[in-house]
Amino acid sequence: MPAASPSAPFDLGEIVSGLRGARETWRDSQGRLREAGGRELPSPQALERIVELLKGALFPMRLGPPDLRNETEDFYVGHTLDAALQALLGQAVLELGHRSRQGSERESASTRAPEIVHEFARSLPGIRRLLDTDVLAAWQGDPAARSVDEVLLCYPGVQAMIHHRLAHRLYQLGLPLLARIVAEVAHSRTGIDIHPGATIGPGFFIDHGTGVVIGETAIIGERVRLYQNVTLGAKRFPVGDDGSLTKGLPRHPVLEDDVVIYAGATVLGRVTIGKGAVIGGNVWVTHDVPAGGSVTQARGNEDRPIS
Amino acid sequence: MPAASPSAPFDLGEIVSGLRGARETWRDSQGRLREAGGRELPSPQALERIVELLKGALFPMRLGPPDLRNETEDFYVGHTLDAALQALLGQAVLELGHRSRQGSERESASTRAPEIVHEFARSLPGIRRLLDTDVLAAWQGDPAARSVDEVLLCYPGVQAMIHHRLAHRLYQLGLPLLARIVAEVAHSRTGIDIHPGATIGPGFFIDHGTGVVIGETAIIGERVRLYQNVTLGAKRFPVGDDGSLTKGLPRHPVLEDDVVIYAGATVLGRVTIGKGAVIGGNVWVTHDVPAGGSVTQARGNEDRPIS
Amino acid sequence: MPAASPSAPFDLGEIVSGLRGARETWRDSQGRLREAGGRELPSPQALERIVELLKGALFPMRLGPPDLRNETEDFYVGHTLDAALQALLGQAVLELGHRSRQGSERESASTRAPEIVHEFARSLPGIRRLLDTDVLAAWQGDPAARSVDEVLLCYPGVQAMIHHRLAHRLYQLGLPLLARIVAEVAHSRTGIDIHPGATIGPGFFIDHGTGVVIGETAIIGERVRLYQNVTLGAKRFPVGDDGSLTKGLPRHPVLEDDVVIYAGATVLGRVTIGKGAVIGGNVWVTHDVPAGGSVTQARGNEDRPIS
Amino acid sequence: MPAASPSAPFDLGEIVSGLRGARETWRDSQGRLREAGGRELPSPQALERIVELLKGALFPMRLGPPDLRNETEDFYVGHTLDAALQALLGQAVLELGHRSRQGSERESASTRAPEIVHEFARSLPGIRRLLDTDVLAAWQGDPAARSVDEVLLCYPGVQAMIHHRLAHRLYQLGLPLLARIVAEVAHSRTGIDIHPGATIGPGFFIDHGTGVVIGETAIIGERVRLYQNVTLGAKRFPVGDDGSLTKGLPRHPVLEDDVVIYAGATVLGRVTIGKGAVIGGNVWVTHDVPAGGSVTQARGNEDRPIS
Amino acid sequence: MPAASPSAPFDLGEIVSGLRGARETWRDSQGRLREAGGRELPSPQALERIVELLKGALFPMRLGPPDLRNETEDFYVGHTLDAALQALLGQAVLELGHRSRQGSERESASTRAPEIVHEFARSLPGIRRLLDTDVLAAWQGDPAARSVDEVLLCYPGVQAMIHHRLAHRLYQLGLPLLARIVAEVAHSRTGIDIHPGATIGPGFFIDHGTGVVIGETAIIGERVRLYQNVTLGAKRFPVGDDGSLTKGLPRHPVLEDDVVIYAGATVLGRVTIGKGAVIGGNVWVTHDVPAGGSVTQARGNEDRPIS
Amino acid sequence: MPAASPSAPFDLGEIVSGLRGARETWRDSQGRLREAGGRELPSPQALERIVELLKGALFPMRLGPPDLRNETEDFYVGHTLDAALQALLGQAVLELGHRSRQGSERESASTRAPEIVHEFARSLPGIRRLLDTDVLAAWQGDPAARSVDEVLLCYPGVQAMIHHRLAHRLYQLGLPLLARIVAEVAHSRTGIDIHPGATIGPGFFIDHGTGVVIGETAIIGERVRLYQNVTLGAKRFPVGDDGSLTKGLPRHPVLEDDVVIYAGATVLGRVTIGKGAVIGGNVWVTHDVPAGGSVTQARGNEDRPIS
Repeated sequence: MPAASPSAPFDLGEIVSGLRGARETWRDSQGRLREAGGRELPSPQALERIVELLKGALFPMRLGPPDLRNETEDFYVGHTLDAALQALLGQAVLELGHRSRQGSERESASTRAPEIVHEFARSLPGIRRLLDTDVLAAWQGDPAARSVDEVLLCYPGVQAMIHHRLAHRLYQLGLPLLARIVAEVAHSRTGIDIHPGATIGPGFFIDHGTGVVIGETAIIGERVRLYQNVTLGAKRFPVGDDGSLTKGLPRHPVLEDDVVIYAGATVLGRVTIGKGAVIGGNVWVTHDVPAGGSVTQARGNEDRPIS
Repeated sequence: MPAASPSAPFDLGEIVSGLRGARETWRDSQGRLREAGGRELPSPQALERIVELLKGALFPMRLGPPDLRNETEDFYVGHTLDAALQALLGQAVLELGHRSRQGSERESASTRAPEIVHEFARSLPGIRRLLDTDVLAAWQGDPAARSVDEVLLCYPGVQAMIHHRLAHRLYQLGLPLLARIVAEVAHSRTGIDIHPGATIGPGFFIDHGTGVVIGETAIIGERVRLYQNVTLGAKRFPVGDDGSLTKGLPRHPVLEDDVVIYAGATVLGRVTIGKGAVIGGNVWVTHDVPAGGSVTQARGNEDRPIS
Repeated sequence: MPAASPSAPFDLGEIVSGLRGARETWRDSQGRLREAGGRELPSPQALERIVELLKGALFPMRLGPPDLRNETEDFYVGHTLDAALQALLGQAVLELGHRSRQGSERESASTRAPEIVHEFARSLPGIRRLLDTDVLAAWQGDPAARSVDEVLLCYPGVQAMIHHRLAHRLYQLGLPLLARIVAEVAHSRTGIDIHPGATIGPGFFIDHGTGVVIGETAIIGERVRLYQNVTLGAKRFPVGDDGSLTKGLPRHPVLEDDVVIYAGATVLGRVTIGKGAVIGGNVWVTHDVPAGGSVTQARGNEDRPIS
Repeated sequence: MPAASPSAPFDLGEIVSGLRGARETWRDSQGRLREAGGRELPSPQALERIVELLKGALFPMRLGPPDLRNETEDFYVGHTLDAALQALLGQAVLELGHRSRQGSERESASTRAPEIVHEFARSLPGIRRLLDTDVLAAWQGDPAARSVDEVLLCYPGVQAMIHHRLAHRLYQLGLPLLARIVAEVAHSRTGIDIHPGATIGPGFFIDHGTGVVIGETAIIGERVRLYQNVTLGAKRFPVGDDGSLTKGLPRHPVLEDDVVIYAGATVLGRVTIGKGAVIGGNVWVTHDVPAGGSVTQARGNEDRPIS
Repeated sequence: MPAASPSAPFDLGEIVSGLRGARETWRDSQGRLREAGGRELPSPQALERIVELLKGALFPMRLGPPDLRNETEDFYVGHTLDAALQALLGQAVLELGHRSRQGSERESASTRAPEIVHEFARSLPGIRRLLDTDVLAAWQGDPAARSVDEVLLCYPGVQAMIHHRLAHRLYQLGLPLLARIVAEVAHSRTGIDIHPGATIGPGFFIDHGTGVVIGETAIIGERVRLYQNVTLGAKRFPVGDDGSLTKGLPRHPVLEDDVVIYAGATVLGRVTIGKGAVIGGNVWVTHDVPAGGSVTQARGNEDRPIS
Repeated sequence: MPAASPSAPFDLGEIVSGLRGARETWRDSQGRLREAGGRELPSPQALERIVELLKGALFPMRLGPPDLRNETEDFYVGHTLDAALQALLGQAVLELGHRSRQGSERESASTRAPEIVHEFARSLPGIRRLLDTDVLAAWQGDPAARSVDEVLLCYPGVQAMIHHRLAHRLYQLGLPLLARIVAEVAHSRTGIDIHPGATIGPGFFIDHGTGVVIGETAIIGERVRLYQNVTLGAKRFPVGDDGSLTKGLPRHPVLEDDVVIYAGATVLGRVTIGKGAVIGGNVWVTHDVPAGGSVTQARGNEDRPIS
């Protein structure tokens, strides 16, 4: 039993009205209408649950319920998919409705959302095949890995790619907010921050992963490997005539097939790292690197013992 | 059904007594009295829930329950605040009680705690106004952002600042342990480690964020922007005559208004980065930088192709 | 109530069969038998709960239930240990069973698992004593720490070491998959990635911690201190005659007693950092450093103001 | 760990198709269309939760959360009511939608439901006043009662009346299915089965209560008291020309003010028990009883010792 | 915050040893061996959940999840059945194991349990068809019923029959303890106590139901209707030569088709109530009643006004 | 997704103020002070959980966790008891505090509560021994019982007695409100309503149980057996000079050893049923019955066929 303290009064009325004032200032500054009805946003918790269901449907014998057998896989997959897709449909309606309230689009959420979710559902077998290549890449690339099952179960780079391949499809289909939320769930759990817009080929492997950042317009080829703290970022943001940021321009690196980038390296801008090139740890790259080339840190600043 | 295994005996008595021995060694080494009563510490789980409630009370239409309408906002805010503040009061009593058992202070937890919590409550409208400036800064600073609501909902830098502005107020009011726990919840979720003692002005934005560390005595002006893996740290710790660390001295950087620090940069010691200065990625700064100045990495170690 | 949308049909049959096809492709490529029975893997959720129980049993008055008193500590410890060990036994049976299905070993899970768990249980008092040295090291090494209890309750470096010392013992006893899962739970929460194979002496402290990576064959002496984003990695992977990675060779650094490594430093390969050496922030070390030596970043690239 | 058993296959496909066949038989026999969309029914679990919220809103200091204070009562009541009413609105839409699918009515669920729920909400203060009279009646009628709070907290007769007075209002407003579900929740918990159609005056008290049944068209005056196993039932059901039961006719007893009916008594048919009459235990009444009268069991069958 | 009270010591050691003494007395008196291993019994909570799953599989569109559509019914049914049957298998192993420890049987739980559960599974389509007749009987027999869906959703008599028809099948297949637990879950919720051994024909309806008791060897024909508080019990228990009760003999009533028994009636012993007979309320029957006959209470004790 | 309905406004302000008015009327009528602080009552949910813990501590191998072994019984019992008693202490403080606010007593809750709970704890071994006699009585008295474990696990009469023997001790020790709540939990689950004041000897068995009522001052000897719907009630309530009910007088029956009372019988008033007497079903007894005597229903009203 906690030590004694009287339950205390706190002038709640005054604070509640102070908070109301702060909200009104904000809404005025944002030029928002005071709508009477609710304005529900998509829910990170709901999307977290949807992704868990989709993981089970994609990998039923390894990420599904303990006792699944071949006899019952399809029942489980069908039922789980249905639950995931109906829930995703609800979130899609919320994003589309939110966007049309923001004035940037004028389409009917209730007709468009089912089409998008259906299209997304049809992509799932292909996504599973892509993810199998990522699992194999991790298994082949890490001498500490003992089985492909271990890789699927506990490698953060694989978790991040499951989220990314789902998020990227949502992004392509016109649900960038849901995609971003799915990506941030993985970012929070793994420290790997892949923008859902990034295009990533098969057999991609991120080892350790904490601190990796991959930008919206990055393009990554086949069998690429990254280590922790690698940034594939933008060098600068183009600014339009009115001084605001120009959105959507290609501004992140292109990595061709079989590139390897070691821990802590930073690659910035729309540069191309050629097929099979190797970028050493902690280096800073802002120009193209030819196919088969490699970049390492200047000799000057390493291993200089000070007596 | 799991494969068969008999439920096994484990000589529990022996292990329990081994653990008791280890506890006694520790308590003896710490010179602690064997008190008969409980010595409850504040609970990270409880504080996590308190912060969730406060988030709902601060941003009811976006982080509160789905169906809120203008008609019912104040009921929700008032009830949620009350639950959050009563729970916070319980945790404050635990911290104050713990500290007085540690012998470092001698005040009455049950009179002081309600005053502190009341003071904290009165700060909430101001904290909401500050957070609105952070949300706007993120929205303006990231070309990938689509709406202010998206920013509030899923940017880790914004989540970290909600936690920080609450934690900093607790720190100021004399609850450094609760403050630290609130900060560590954000650290665990976002990889952003802001000490609750750090002083941060309005319009602060951290992009991506994983690996950011901001020290206890750092002072940050208005409209500052940081990227992932930036450290604002201490260069060395002053040691007193008795060899122990001197605590509380200013030892972290001062960033004036409009400073930008790119990914991976490290700024150490009580240096001042002048208004509008730009620190490039991956650099290491231990001296003052003048207003409007910029620091970039040595040319020597970048982009050096090796044939 | 969410806006209206008809619950939509999604051609589930087609998608379920597409997913079945993808699974069959995978299984064929992996040469797996289509077994009729379940093939349950260990569960990260179960191990997360087991570690929480073990934390309570190791530190009952600080991480156990609120009202514990000296009178009841042993009842709590005994009961909690029993629950944790029985659950661990279940997971050990799953790992051993999984491994024998993988064909790499042929031992009887149901006789071996209880022996391993019993051995693990007997290690717990020693693990508690080691962790006490880590807690003291954190308390002494951080000027912001206010009490040993605060350190235990909220320092991510301490959380990571609790997980590591448990995971390392599981790894030693032949349960590398369970060990890896325990390590990844800590990695996800703290951003600190310590391979369970790493050997770490008493009094180890990691400050801030996000982005730290410590490899499988690293050996760390007594009273060593690391900061965020330090990597103790492998320089290259030995490849056997058949082109596959040779697993298990010593390939990570050895740190002797009292070494300090500052934020962002990278130490690669089987090098030895001698007793008391100091490695500066952001440097890149691939050779031995003598006892008492220090390595800092090249002067060239710091603090170079650009007008 | 449970004793060993292989997870077993069960010819699920065959059983699933057997169940499908049974459903088709049923649907054919009921002449139901095979609709593509969902046909969600109201949820007993949802209504159970709604009633719990309403109880808190009606009696905030005694059935609400532990720490409520006068300062915060209205915040709590407003927020809780809003949650309860929005959830009730969802259930009302389901009942109205279900009924229109049954073909018995043709009204628009989405316009009618909010009107009904609003009307229901306006009745709540009156319902609270009525329930206060029931609480007082229990307190005055039971020599074992120690306080009015005890009565509200744990008398099953009072719980049943809270449910009934809410259910009766739903019934009056055209939601008989929701009303029935609310009544059955009380029936399951208390053994008291009051049809939501029954009309019951203030100050009603049921002691013990198990086995009490009160029919749909019963009318009960003020200050009436019943004991366990009392039935106020119908003697026979009128059958129409087509042989089906005629629904809705008055067929249950009328009890005038101040009637008392002891345990086990059965009163059947549209009879009137006059003001202040007393019905003894276990008797069977199918005729009117005048005001002030009393009925007891025949002497013949009691207390007849058999040697 | 609760009022202050120190957490109190309670001489736990003494009480724990007192309880151990009481357990030892009991075990000695029961002649039980002190076995080292666990002796797990079936779990009422587990069976409650299994029955909920089976209800969903039997009536997917009405008792299953809200959004089910024809397209997805079979996925849901298959997956839910699998979960229910695997869980039931676990409980069956526990009952069979427990019985063999009791010495009354010597069969192998791990071979017999899957056969029983498989047999049970095959009965489910037939059970669904029987339950449809019960639902129709309730709908036709109660003038207050508005739809067959309402009857299925909230009539306690129907709930009791779903439990009974499942429990009776378990009883027939040699799992009387599981059967009893399933029956008691319904008893607790509805007040209707049907022994799982009772044989009940199609179209059975119990109205209101509280207090109904139906004994183990009762046999009930088609289209029978009972009201609350009806007992179909045993008159006396045959005692064997050694004075112990003789178990399993027919000792409860036989009710032929179309019998109706009104509230409170008691029928005792192996008597036969002939086809179409009607038993009035509160009467006591210990002899056969011919087909078409009726029994009512003696006139003497009803409606006798006392002035 | 539910069919569409706008989230509706409900004039909440008006209803909240209507409810406030109703509360004020009530409080005025009750002469209550408007206290600023909370007035928390004991919680039925908390007591339900406490009783579950106590059941586990009393019967660890059968009602405790699945995997308990002899080695670990005492750890489990000690830890579970501690949790139960600390929680009970919290509830005891609430009852005593509530009573002193009611003005009926003036004792210090925080000194008295620990004494009471300690006394209660010391009674537990004796309560376990008594309950063992009840379990044996059920096992011997029911021909359908297959093992003593089945009886403990699923007989409602045994569940009711576990609650009663705990509740009766709380009642004796001066916590009548907690006692009543514990009794009502059993009443709700089993339909058996035993007032916690009733004095009941060892070896008591209630079969079926629904509808049984046993009054506050009843005294029951050894080896007594009751069936469903038996009432041991008060004939009339003595009224004092001021017209209010006189509380606490002996007003319920005394049953001597070995009495049996069949289903539906009613025994009223302070009468004595002598040793070994048998009361038949449905009879109504208001006078003493001699030892060895029996009472049955009048012949007149049974088995009278009506042609």
